[in-house]
Amino acid sequence: MDLSSFITSLTTSFLIFIVLVLLFVWLSRKPANRVVYYPNLILRGVDPEGRGSRNPLTWAFEAIRSTEHDVINVSGVDTAVYFVFLSTVLGILALAGIVLLPVLLPVSSTDNSKKTANSTNSNGTFNDLDKLSMGNVAEKSSRLWAYLLATYWVSLVTYYLLWRAYKHVSALRENALMSPEIRPEQFAVLVRDVPRPTDGQTMKEQVDSYFRAIYPETFYRSLIATDNKEVNKIWEELEGYRKKLVRAETIYDESKKTGNPDGTRPTHKTGFLGLVGKKVDSIEFYHEKIVELTPKLEAEQKVTLKEKQQPAALVFFTNRVAAAAASQSLHAPLVDTWTVMCAPEPRQLTWTNLPIKFFERQVRQYVICIIVTLTIFFYMIPIGFISAFTTLQNLKKLLPFLKPMIDQPEIRTVLEAYLPQIALIVFLALLPKLLLYLSKLEGIPSQSHIERAASGKYFYFTVLNVFIGVTVGGTLFGTFKEIENDPNSIVALLATSLPGNATFFLTFVALQFFVGYGLELSRIVPLIIFHLKKKYFCKTEAEARDAWFPGDLGYATRVPGDMLIITIVLCYSVIAPLIIPFGVIYFGLGWLILRNQALKVYVPAYESYGRMWPHMHARILASLILYQVTMLGYFSVKKFVYAPVLIPGVILSFLFGYVCSNKFYRFFSSASVEVASPVLKEPPQLELIFKAYVPPSLSLEKSEDEFEDALSQVSRSVSLA
Amino acid sequence: MDLSSFITSLTTSFLIFIVLVLLFVWLSRKPANRVVYYPNLILRGVDPEGRGSRNPLTWAFEAIRSTEHDVINVSGVDTAVYFVFLSTVLGILALAGIVLLPVLLPVSSTDNSKKTANSTNSNGTFNDLDKLSMGNVAEKSSRLWAYLLATYWVSLVTYYLLWRAYKHVSALRENALMSPEIRPEQFAVLVRDVPRPTDGQTMKEQVDSYFRAIYPETFYRSLIATDNKEVNKIWEELEGYRKKLVRAETIYDESKKTGNPDGTRPTHKTGFLGLVGKKVDSIEFYHEKIVELTPKLEAEQKVTLKEKQQPAALVFFTNRVAAAAASQSLHAPLVDTWTVMCAPEPRQLTWTNLPIKFFERQVRQYVICIIVTLTIFFYMIPIGFISAFTTLQNLKKLLPFLKPMIDQPEIRTVLEAYLPQIALIVFLALLPKLLLYLSKLEGIPSQSHIERAASGKYFYFTVLNVFIGVTVGGTLFGTFKEIENDPNSIVALLATSLPGNATFFLTFVALQFFVGYGLELSRIVPLIIFHLKKKYFCKTEAEARDAWFPGDLGYATRVPGDMLIITIVLCYSVIAPLIIPFGVIYFGLGWLILRNQALKVYVPAYESYGRMWPHMHARILASLILYQVTMLGYFSVKKFVYAPVLIPGVILSFLFGYVCSNKFYRFFSSASVEVASPVLKEPPQLELIFKAYVPPSLSLEKSEDEFEDALSQVSRSVSLA
Repeated sequence: MDLSSFITSLTTSFLIFIVLVLLFVWLSRKPANRVVYYPNLILRGVDPEGRGSRNPLTWAFEAIRSTEHDVINVSGVDTAVYFVFLSTVLGILALAGIVLLPVLLPVSSTDNSKKTANSTNSNGTFNDLDKLSMGNVAEKSSRLWAYLLATYWVSLVTYYLLWRAYKHVSALRENALMSPEIRPEQFAVLVRDVPRPTDGQTMKEQVDSYFRAIYPETFYRSLIATDNKEVNKIWEELEGYRKKLVRAETIYDESKKTGNPDGTRPTHKTGFLGLVGKKVDSIEFYHEKIVELTPKLEAEQKVTLKEKQQPAALVFFTNRVAAAAASQSLHAPLVDTWTVMCAPEPRQLTWTNLPIKFFERQVRQYVICIIVTLTIFFYMIPIGFISAFTTLQNLKKLLPFLKPMIDQPEIRTVLEAYLPQIALIVFLALLPKLLLYLSKLEGIPSQSHIERAASGKYFYFTVLNVFIGVTVGGTLFGTFKEIENDPNSIVALLATSLPGNATFFLTFVALQFFVGYGLELSRIVPLIIFHLKKKYFCKTEAEARDAWFPGDLGYATRVPGDMLIITIVLCYSVIAPLIIPFGVIYFGLGWLILRNQALKVYVPAYESYGRMWPHMHARILASLILYQVTMLGYFSVKKFVYAPVLIPGVILSFLFGYVCSNKFYRFFSSASVEVASPVLKEPPQLELIFKAYVPPSLSLEKSEDEFEDALSQVSRSVSLA
Repeated sequence: MDLSSFITSLTTSFLIFIVLVLLFVWLSRKPANRVVYYPNLILRGVDPEGRGSRNPLTWAFEAIRSTEHDVINVSGVDTAVYFVFLSTVLGILALAGIVLLPVLLPVSSTDNSKKTANSTNSNGTFNDLDKLSMGNVAEKSSRLWAYLLATYWVSLVTYYLLWRAYKHVSALRENALMSPEIRPEQFAVLVRDVPRPTDGQTMKEQVDSYFRAIYPETFYRSLIATDNKEVNKIWEELEGYRKKLVRAETIYDESKKTGNPDGTRPTHKTGFLGLVGKKVDSIEFYHEKIVELTPKLEAEQKVTLKEKQQPAALVFFTNRVAAAAASQSLHAPLVDTWTVMCAPEPRQLTWTNLPIKFFERQVRQYVICIIVTLTIFFYMIPIGFISAFTTLQNLKKLLPFLKPMIDQPEIRTVLEAYLPQIALIVFLALLPKLLLYLSKLEGIPSQSHIERAASGKYFYFTVLNVFIGVTVGGTLFGTFKEIENDPNSIVALLATSLPGNATFFLTFVALQFFVGYGLELSRIVPLIIFHLKKKYFCKTEAEARDAWFPGDLGYATRVPGDMLIITIVLCYSVIAPLIIPFGVIYFGLGWLILRNQALKVYVPAYESYGRMWPHMHARILASLILYQVTMLGYFSVKKFVYAPVLIPGVILSFLFGYVCSNKFYRFFSSASVEVASPVLKEPPQLELIFKAYVPPSLSLEKSEDEFEDALSQVSRSVSLA
């Protein structure tokens, strides 16, 4: 790719971005679109009225002016931690750029020795951009010292900012958990691997008597896990009919308004997809169904609570310190019975994973680790095919009808710049679902943990396949034998292939931020979906709300995406410092646009109080280490005898990671009793805390007492606090 | 070494053993020696009268008849666990021997192919013993299948017995900890890394307010660690004078009885070693000194308690569950402040290690790990020299005056058999002190843990230096280059050198059990020391008691010694099955003699409730893996193509270790709250529990109240339970 094609692609990206921003400004002013652009505000009961009338950059100013405190209030600690992550990376890249750009660019561009000495080496891709990179410096040149020191500078900046960020996030988590507000998960522990009861007791009785004996004063009651498959099915059916009834009633009411004052009673056919079968009056039909199903549900609820108890439970305590201490303590002498751990939030508890046994969980973990490893390595092959396929020459051959279009110079330039990247992005979009599914199979009891696990897998996938895959890409197959003989050569190979791919990744980063963030801000896709749904489907309030409900920030895919950018920018930071401003724009723009989205659009699905951070930290550090190792390889390729001076840097990174995880990590994996000890605002309503955990399919509005009776059995005798 | 020399050495060992046993029977009958042979009984107040009159094997019958329950009552859980260890190993070797001896010995001895085919290969050491070993089987012979299956048999027996033993020990620990008796360490936690107090508080006030805030109902009081160097010095001086005073008074009283009815008042000189300086009346002098030092001690105690507080403390709770849960919980969000862990027993707390900071402890651990590794490798060199030096030919050259003695055939045979082993044993005796000292430097807060750490180091030392060192020994230096080029060749090298050293290790094991256990039973050395001390030094009751006080079993050196034997016997079990009976005798005799010693002689210095077991387990497993790898190497040397069939065995061992440590280990490293929950026999006397931890130099008999006042300060206000 030459300079002009690069500039074209940049300009196109920028134009697309501007168009998207203008679209956002224009569309967000329309009152009909408010639910798409300000759903968070609406759900919190804040009126977004009048937001359309101000100047087009108001959103940006509002985002900049918002404080961390605002973000925590609106969107929770997890979101605030995500911004700490963005601003830390932004800080690393900005501090790196401030030193590296003014120092390294002149050093590279003034070295003319290489051009004259071995210009044939540059393989025809030599151009003005390459002149600004480390590739332009001659082998063994003493100028390389500047690059070596620059590598250390980037590392030191990273350590410093990561350390500050870890401390800051730790304090955020501490403040959030210390707050005197009542959070159900702070009063509960999750108990798994309950042994089979021996003396005719039910599971629940056993759990109750076990915990009452150990914690006579602080035990409140327990909620046994049950096999809810059957009851959930009935409940979902029932809920479906309820929704359909409301819908039918709405349609009937509307029909009254339009023509016929008596209205037309809606009808439908009972067969497949409403297309065949007997025609019935919808309102009556659904009503009957509901009346029919309700006692069935109640009966099934009783059966479930009594006979489908599973060897796992939630145990509630009367105070937070007792729960925090219990969640970290070994209960039975054998580790694989009565396993106790922190309870996840009610909304992120994955009930179906609870009964999985101790060693089965471990076996599952290993099996899934193997599957993921295989996936990572087998995905490499299609990616290789795609890169080969999406070059224009190949495309012309394979799809000749495109030829006239491709031959136009403007279109060709754009296509040449984007095609491989678009292929890559589409391809990557297919994976996250698979990884989430695999992570859930591991037996993890909380949704946030599942997403963290998936996110980790995705990170390794992207770094290995995208970064290393694309870089080493074509060269790899040819030199496979060589690698087999000497595994160390992969570093050298990576190092040699890096400079040639600098512009590819520059374009990749630019595409990501201009087009990616442009789409994010403008919300074109959700807007279109919302309007289509509204027009052709939504009849009731609830259906309309479902149509515009924004969902959450999507950690599981967003974070690994950002991580890939960090890895790319870090690895190129010294080799081609020109990439740094792109990285800065990516994270700066990301911060700004996502701040807007976090404050006004997305609604978090759960709150894990920053448990994502240690993973982000570890992966930034992993990127740094990859960068240091790559640089070590690249300096060796440059035949710089002082390259081993970089080795202490790698050791320092490991040491830094070790110290950090020793000092901070445990607080993120378990509750601290000090943090749980402050007095609460008001005495906790333990019954409400308990009810927060009862799955909806098991809680009945009508027969509250009956349900109570079935659920509590033993715990009745305890006085309620 | 030929067969006759081997038989001679065996016979000599056996004769020495018989002599020592007879000595024991004869000496233990004398009333004057009772304190040496039955100190444990005497200290427990049981009268050993009449024990001398029975038949010479009474002690053995008594040992066999004693139950595990007796051992726990007399000597504690740790000793019982040591016997579980001995009987498990005995079981492994016995079950291995039952199958291996009748199967493998005929298979080896009937293979005559090798003798004719390549007798030159056997290097002149070929004899009747070698005929019974695997070395006698031809390369690639299908008879090797028997050996391969034997290897698996030994592994499976080991897994089975280890699993049973781990379960059994876990139950022993559970029962001991569950007992309704009051144990101070179950009510306390150890707090380290207390942060510097900010608002003018003392350390102690800070600890008190911190824990009272978190555990308002269960916190009792705290005992702050202090810098006791000064106060200990004064206290020891004072105690020294008190002892000397008693001694002087006893001498004076005795002198009254003998000649002069007024007695001779003892005198001594105040200068160096009582040899120079002014002559004074001893009784008066010591009395004055005591009077002089007592107020000094009291003043220093006050200063210590108030001004020398250190950032560590013991915190006491009013019940065991609270302490157990607290000891496992994270307190402050930052892991390196307010570190809380299980409190060690009062008698094994190492006060001086408490104030060492979190990261300093970790750094110390790594530094000491490096030092120990260096020690292990540098000890190898002197061991090599010693083996070379102690051959008879060299000895004759170096010490020619020994020649006439050595030339006598009987003496030469004995010397030839023993000299290298004696050198080795003496050499090994020098090391444990060093390792204990190094382990203490790591900052470990309890004596039992220090001994475990030292024992672990000693194990690696003996296996690496003695077993591998002696085996590979001479060959190593010649083939060093080869190893450098291909590190895998060390396994092959080890495998090739094994058969040649079989008889050396047979003799080593025999020497260990006959002479080692003979000396152990007869207690010749302690007996002589006791009688010498009694005759020339002891004047008072206390001094006599010190002279016969037996000390404990000495885990730190005994266990690694046993481990070395296990490693040797396991590694040779298939190659030269004849070693198995020797192993069986070693552990059988050891069980019998140590049972006697545990019941009647030794007094345990501490009780860790079987925490030694996971270490023993891990090391038996390590020996097994070493054995499996060695066998893999040896089968390869035998050019047996099915050798890789052994690889799953190695993997299985690692898996077994992983499952065991997952299932059982946590209970050994931390308290289980279930175990702590049973109701106590009587309400705990918390004040007594607290006092059990006050170091003797800080507890005053006289001014109890004053001391109380100084110690408690804040905790005064708490009502005592």
